[in-house]
Formats: sequence, structure tokens, C-alpha cells
Amino acid sequence: MPADPVPSPAEPTVHVAPGFPVVGVVGAGQLARMMAPPAVELGVGLRVLAESAQASAAQVIPDAPVGDHRDEAAVRAFAAGADVLTFDHEHVPQPILQALEADGVAVRPPAAALAHAQDKLVMRRRLTDLGVPCPCWRQVATLDELEAFATEVGDVVLKTPTGGYDGKGVLVLPADGPRDEAQRWLAARPDGLLAEEKVPFTRELAVLVARSPSGQAAAWPVVESIQVDGICHEVIAPAPGLDDGTAALATEIGLKLAGELGVVGVLAVELFQTRSPDGTTGVLVNELAMRPHNSGHWTIDGSLTSQFEQHLRAVLDLPLGDPRPRARWAVMVNVLGGDYPDLYRSYLHVMARDPGVKVHLYGKEVRPGRKVGHVTVTGRDLDDVRARARHAAAFITGEIDE
Amino acid sequence: MPADPVPSPAEPTVHVAPGFPVVGVVGAGQLARMMAPPAVELGVGLRVLAESAQASAAQVIPDAPVGDHRDEAAVRAFAAGADVLTFDHEHVPQPILQALEADGVAVRPPAAALAHAQDKLVMRRRLTDLGVPCPCWRQVATLDELEAFATEVGDVVLKTPTGGYDGKGVLVLPADGPRDEAQRWLAARPDGLLAEEKVPFTRELAVLVARSPSGQAAAWPVVESIQVDGICHEVIAPAPGLDDGTAALATEIGLKLAGELGVVGVLAVELFQTRSPDGTTGVLVNELAMRPHNSGHWTIDGSLTSQFEQHLRAVLDLPLGDPRPRARWAVMVNVLGGDYPDLYRSYLHVMARDPGVKVHLYGKEVRPGRKVGHVTVTGRDLDDVRARARHAAAFITGEIDE
Repeated sequence: MPADPVPSPAEPTVHVAPGFPVVGVVGAGQLARMMAPPAVELGVGLRVLAESAQASAAQVIPDAPVGDHRDEAAVRAFAAGADVLTFDHEHVPQPILQALEADGVAVRPPAAALAHAQDKLVMRRRLTDLGVPCPCWRQVATLDELEAFATEVGDVVLKTPTGGYDGKGVLVLPADGPRDEAQRWLAARPDGLLAEEKVPFTRELAVLVARSPSGQAAAWPVVESIQVDGICHEVIAPAPGLDDGTAALATEIGLKLAGELGVVGVLAVELFQTRSPDGTTGVLVNELAMRPHNSGHWTIDGSLTSQFEQHLRAVLDLPLGDPRPRARWAVMVNVLGGDYPDLYRSYLHVMARDPGVKVHLYGKEVRPGRKVGHVTVTGRDLDDVRARARHAAAFITGEIDE
Repeated sequence: MPADPVPSPAEPTVHVAPGFPVVGVVGAGQLARMMAPPAVELGVGLRVLAESAQASAAQVIPDAPVGDHRDEAAVRAFAAGADVLTFDHEHVPQPILQALEADGVAVRPPAAALAHAQDKLVMRRRLTDLGVPCPCWRQVATLDELEAFATEVGDVVLKTPTGGYDGKGVLVLPADGPRDEAQRWLAARPDGLLAEEKVPFTRELAVLVARSPSGQAAAWPVVESIQVDGICHEVIAPAPGLDDGTAALATEIGLKLAGELGVVGVLAVELFQTRSPDGTTGVLVNELAMRPHNSGHWTIDGSLTSQFEQHLRAVLDLPLGDPRPRARWAVMVNVLGGDYPDLYRSYLHVMARDPGVKVHLYGKEVRPGRKVGHVTVTGRDLDDVRARARHAAAFITGEIDE
């Protein structure tokens, strides 16, 4: 894509103390919104390129120009008002990122790293080259290729290489099931799809690390994440009963990937925990994200340095903060939109019932299944912490009313 | 003051999810700024009436109209865009507050309560009526009255009833010292000054409580505050070695005053701890503030519910949060402007040296003695926590360079 003429930089509208930098975030979802509190505390400037003036982060960040992240001129003009560019999502096209880098914009994570979070085929190839444990996978462009792969591995998970999230872009294909939906997917993406074995995992884990341009890295404890229909529902930090060897292996994978891929900022690695017939446990990498991630929301209340503060520190090449937990256990439960639109009324009751629950809402209107907030509870007794977090989330969404 | 015609409410510029309220804060200093992070998390709207577009809170809050808090029309128009009105400072004149209340604006704390934080003579009279322990005091309008009081108590502290802060508006008069400065003060305030005995205290304590309109109240642990030249330098939470009886007495005073004065929001009670010749300790009330207070900044990192979140919950009549500490000790040290203007460079070094220190900056330009930020360290070993917090603050200001 040829570069558009560079628009003149807009008047700076972020006020910061002299000498302090401005971070520009492409996208104004809840991840950008949750960067606002640590930016306020650190005294660094924040601007977001917003989908709309009412977007989650645009509600709370003064400098939130509305623009399209697929429009090179818009991204370029936006970046001109910031010292570094980072992201709320992975959807900025590679040609735009590369053009900005060619012009000297500090894109963090860099385009070459971000490619692994944008395209699952790129990711699988690279991880396999690096010897990082992955599910069996194959690039398939025809039904014959798909069937050949299914013959080898049994049940197959078919994924669109780009654009999937929260269970979208994923099709589970039992070994002997129908293939008509798969055929439609293949026809729509003649460049090929990613086929993976359906891993018989015991549970899902995630490891979050942060890395700065100067190579400093820090990892939070490995967590367990509980997904329903491909959407994260609950995260327990640290993962209960995880043996030290597996925890160390998962952390090693996170740190290795951050370094090898040249990640800057937060890297989330979603993992399957597996158990072989002899009882030994292992991990396989499921997905990567190069930004703060749902599996790290517990860090706001549960860690000395939250993933949002750490992301800002990392992209600014500030020394990283201590990722140590503040409590023995932290449980985060997502608040998904339900039938009950009046969140304010229900969260008032949750606060009355449990003064220790931390409620985080994203300023969004309720739509069924939409992530509109999360709750976190910390403490010493996992059963108690988990029950309280689940109850609070279910009450806010209106699933239960007592 | 007659009410000005009510200007038509401005277009709402605070975007919140349906059903969520907006808090309007008069004043855009660091206290309003530190309300922004919990407002983002709670999903409630926040607007500030700012002294300037570059003011500390105006930098980080999208809806920050510039206006004069002494201009009734400006305050009225501002209040029309919020569900409740609260404050960054105590400087809004009583007639404006009363006029707004007469028109049904939810002023929190109410004008009648706030009077006790605005006028030290009003405060002393009421506290004495309530039987709350205070230093000996007298209203004095002439040098003769002042001398008569000095004959009774010895050294005197002369205070302007209104407008003082951070050691300003306070004149210490040794029993046998000169009186020419006092005479100038008396001449300038013919309505009278507050004269107090200079209390031979062993240390200064502070108790912070929050109270909601429905009467719910919560107290944080009593802290020790270390002042230099009338400016808070350091706060240790909880106050080291404080006996249970004195802690309970201080907490009782805080809760009693919040209830009796009808406070809504955070009330800070600054106390002198005293020791009588027989060794028993007691407390005397020094000052009141009805807003988040410097002695409570440690709660951001050290308590399950920060004073800023609690203030928002209280003024909105939401159930109050759990004020329990997150760690055994928290030490907060103010970052005062020094000779070194490049805060960004020095705080980068502090972060590198101590990844566990929480740095909070207010977006202000450095001016000597100005509060430009604070640091908090939490942990189990008080000596370690205190040394780290002091070192970080001194390094940021440039007092030390290693």
C-alpha cells in the first residue's frame, strides 16, 4: 500500500508535565480504558484512536480522536501526537505498521512481532521452528487436505488465521462429523486455514510476561483460565495445584517467546495443560496476544504491578515493576451482558453484600454475551475467594438475584 | 448573595453507561486527579471545574470546563451537568453552596458540614460543644486579648480562621516573643483570629473516615503523619506502636465527628498525640478536612479501598468498600519540588533501583516546595519499607543522586 501524504500533526492536546512522554493507543476498548488509571498515576500522557466518541476508553481519556485503524493517514496523524504507538487490539494492517516504522515511529510491539498475534499460521510456523510445544497443526486449503489431517489426528479444530477472537473464527470438527460448514470456510479463505488437533487438555493455563525494548522482562505467576464457549469466564491466580516444573516450563515459554519474537509490552500466552498416559503433565501453546489480556485483569487488584501499568512501562522503556502478587489468591470473573440492563442497580447490591469485592465496569451498554466488566476478589482461602467473585459477577449480570 | 439566573445546563459531555451517575468535583488539583482512576474502574462519570485547562485533574479528565469556584453562575452551570457535587478543596463560599442546596443540588459534604472545614473558629466552637478534646483555644481580635490568652497557656499558635493550608495562615508566638507580626495579622482580620495553645505533642496522628448520606461509615487504621514546616512529608500506616486504647479513641473521634457534623465523603481528622506527666497518652484534634487528604494517599496502594474510591462511593451513596490494609505496613512520602526539574529522568532511575515502589505524579511543573507527587511502599518490615519510600522520594526530587 503506498503511503498517503503525511498530514500535519494535530495540535498537541495531551497535557503532561515537562519531559513526560505520551503513549498513543490504537483502539478505545476496555484494554485501552484500563491503561488510563496507571497513566494517571505515572504521570505519562495517553491518547487513544477511538472507534467512536462513546467508546469505552474514549469516555475517560481526554485526547481521543475518532478514526479508523485501517486508514493509514488516520493512524499516521494519530501517531504524530504520541512518542510511542501501542494497541488495544491486533487489527492494524501490517502495511500500515511497516510504513510507520519506516518513518521512524516507535511501534510497540513492532510490526514483525505483532505479525505472530495477527496471523495464527505465522505464529504456528514460528513456534514450531523455535521448538515450542504446540498442538499438531497443518495449513489446509482444500477439503482433501483437511481430511488427510483428520485421518492423522482425529477431531480437528479449524481456525481462520486472522480476525478471530472470543471463540469467533473457530470451528470444531469431530473426526466423523459433517464437513459442509468446513467447506464453506475453505471456499471463503482460498489462502488457507489453520487446522489443529483438538487437544484433550486437562485445563487451560495462561502465562503473562512483559518485555521492554532494552530487553528487560518480567513474568506474573501462571494462572488457570476457565473458558466457556471460547470466552474467558474466570481466572484463578496462581493456577491451583500447579506443579513447580510445569509452572517453570510455562514461564520459560512466555519469556522465550517474548525475547525470540521481539515483543515489546505485555505478551499473553494461552496454554493447554495436558496429561500423558504415564501421568506426566505438559503444556501446549494455544494462542498469543501482544497486549494486556483478559487473563491478566486480576493483576489490577492482585499484583504489585498491574499488566496495564507494566504495558505502559514496557512500551516507554521504563524499568519494569514488580509483578509479585499482593495476596495468596486472586480470582477474576468476567461480567458478561445478560438480560438485565440496569448494571448500576445490581452492582450497588453487590457492594452492599461484599465490601471487599473490586468491581470494574467498562462503560458499555449491556448486550447479551458482551464483556461489560469484571470483578476481582483477593484473599487467603481459595474456595471463599472464588465463591465471592462468582457470586458478585452473577449478581451484577442478573443471573441470580440474592 | 442573590442567586444569578440559572444558565441552561450545558450539553452532557460525560459519557457513561445507561443509569450511571456523574460526580462533579469543584477544583482540579491532585485530589480530583486521584479520583479519576477509581471513577474509571467503577464506571461512574467524573467532571471537574478546573482552574485552568492544564490543571492536574484537567489533564486526565475529559469533561473539565474552566471556571471560577467563587462565581456562583459558573458553579451552578457546572453542577447542572452532574448528579452530585463534591470538592477538591474547601474554598467555595458558603453563600454559593447554600444557594445550590436551596435549589436541590446534592452538595456533598453539605454546606453546613463543610463550614467546619472552612472556618477554624466554627470548628473549634462545635468540637468544644461536642466534648471532643481540642487544644485550649480562644477567639482573639486585639493584642490585649491575645496577651491575656498567652498569660494562661504560654506559647501560642495564631491561625487565620479561613484560607490556611500547608502551614500558611499559621503564626507561632513564643510566650515572651515579639508581637509585631501578630499585630499586623490582627489588624488585617478585625473579625478575629483563632489563638491556640502550642501543644507539646509527642507526634501527629491522623484518622480518616468516610460517611455516606444514608449514614454508613468506615474508618481506615490510624496513621502517623510527619510534618515539616507545616507540610506533610511522610505518613506511616498504621501508626507504629500506637496502643489500642488511643487507636480506638482516635477512631471514635473520627466516626463521631463524621456523624455529628453530617459529613458526606471522606473526613480527615489531624490529631496531636500527647503524653501527660503520669505517662498516659491522649489525643487532641488539630485540623479537619472534608475530602480525600494527604494523610490517606497510602490507601491507593495500601488499602483494599482507597480514600478516592471511598469518597466517590460515599458521595454517590453507594455502599462503602472495605478499608482493610493490603499489607502490614505502608509508608507514603511526598515528592516536593526541589532544584531538579527533570522528574522523568529521576523517576526512571527510582523504578530501576526499586521495582516495588509505587510512584504517583500529579502532572505538575516543579516549583520549590510544591507537592508534585508521592511514593508509597508496602511490606512487612517497617524499617525497610520506610527507608525505600524515603529514598525514592528524595531521589525523584534530586535531593540525593545515588
